[in-house]
Amino acid sequence: MLVKTVIKDIQSLALKKHREQTGCYVAEGPKLVLELLQQYRQQIVAIYALQAWIDTNQSLLNDLSVTCITAAELDRLSHLQTPHQVVAVVRLPQRTNPIAAAQFTLACCGLQDPGNLGTIIRTADWFGVRQLVCSIDTVDCFNPKVVQASMGSIFRVAVHYLDLENWIDQHGAVPVLAATMQGTDVRTLSSLQEAILLIGNESAGIPASLLAKAGAAVSVPGKGQVESLNAAVATGIILSYLR
Amino acid sequence: MLVKTVIKDIQSLALKKHREQTGCYVAEGPKLVLELLQQYRQQIVAIYALQAWIDTNQSLLNDLSVTCITAAELDRLSHLQTPHQVVAVVRLPQRTNPIAAAQFTLACCGLQDPGNLGTIIRTADWFGVRQLVCSIDTVDCFNPKVVQASMGSIFRVAVHYLDLENWIDQHGAVPVLAATMQGTDVRTLSSLQEAILLIGNESAGIPASLLAKAGAAVSVPGKGQVESLNAAVATGIILSYLR
Repeated sequence: MLVKTVIKDIQSLALKKHREQTGCYVAEGPKLVLELLQQYRQQIVAIYALQAWIDTNQSLLNDLSVTCITAAELDRLSHLQTPHQVVAVVRLPQRTNPIAAAQFTLACCGLQDPGNLGTIIRTADWFGVRQLVCSIDTVDCFNPKVVQASMGSIFRVAVHYLDLENWIDQHGAVPVLAATMQGTDVRTLSSLQEAILLIGNESAGIPASLLAKAGAAVSVPGKGQVESLNAAVATGIILSYLR
Repeated sequence: MLVKTVIKDIQSLALKKHREQTGCYVAEGPKLVLELLQQYRQQIVAIYALQAWIDTNQSLLNDLSVTCITAAELDRLSHLQTPHQVVAVVRLPQRTNPIAAAQFTLACCGLQDPGNLGTIIRTADWFGVRQLVCSIDTVDCFNPKVVQASMGSIFRVAVHYLDLENWIDQHGAVPVLAATMQGTDVRTLSSLQEAILLIGNESAGIPASLLAKAGAAVSVPGKGQVESLNAAVATGIILSYLR
């Protein structure tokens, strides 16, 4: 049986403050944990899983800290609405500095929805984008819902939190594009190896002070009555033309 | 004060069974309800809102059934994690038959995630797609989370639930495309006015029996390590090339 403090410690990783204090976050479900076991094993701190999952994955577990838990314990540990067999506690990656030159960088300005940020990280990975830079007020990328929506891409794509204006000022030579509602039709643009693409908050878009730093604005033309595209869908469409 | 039965009735609209029994669903938050008031007023059955929202929107409410509620009552009525000022009970649209000829139709095969279906409806609307057909096992489009993610597009885009195989068989003259992992590069295709685009379940994809009915498969080429794109992002990218 799990002691209460263990359950409490893992539950507390839902909060950024506790993730930073402990240097850990949580990844859940067989798909993500299998990916960790196969490719990012050294990042795993501990695994809590149902007996059935342990039986199936026994050959991959040898030296790891694995605790067998009951379905009721899983329900308490899990940050998901529908817990799924296994919870891994994972080491936060070491902080590094983002590099703007010779890179395609996605810059997220105040995104709030964890599902959107996770899907954007997954989409970036799909299109070979290796890094995101996020404004300080963007949802934390190790939030359990972001980790889940990234479908494992959070293990591969580097996500940095910083003052976007300062950072862009320091890299004046790299072209800056802004995804907006009134920009150049994305279908007329050609592929870019080096650029910073600004993606705005779900309702407020990109702050004027950042928009002023963009050399060009880019849009996905639509013909329906809906006001805007979802941020992750818009990012995916723009990346499909620029990458 | 709201009577308990009213609260219970509205809560019950989270379930498809109750939506079908009552002919009603729920749309929440100032954005969706304003859109209803301005464009789809005749669909509104009743509104439950905080005094502040009523004060702001007084001029639009005249003949409607509007009940002032407290924040605590809103918390109980709402199907959202973060309730937002107003809940509208809305009439389900009358059932109609989908038309395949001279239309671009999205066909969803067993999509399970309400956020994905809602975002797909919103994206369809953006690209001027007027209808979706969904397999019977696809999540219901009037599920509160679908309504929310559609950002009002559910009021405009017709969504039909039917036996997809039968329906496609009946419309043999319309080209059928399947969104898959191993299809023709979507960037090489040109715009289509008449087509049925099959979108698969988040993990299982498109069932073989349906895939067999597609004249062509279409894919979004990627270069990262992630297994797949999110279903809504993939749909958005494909629509951006085909519409």
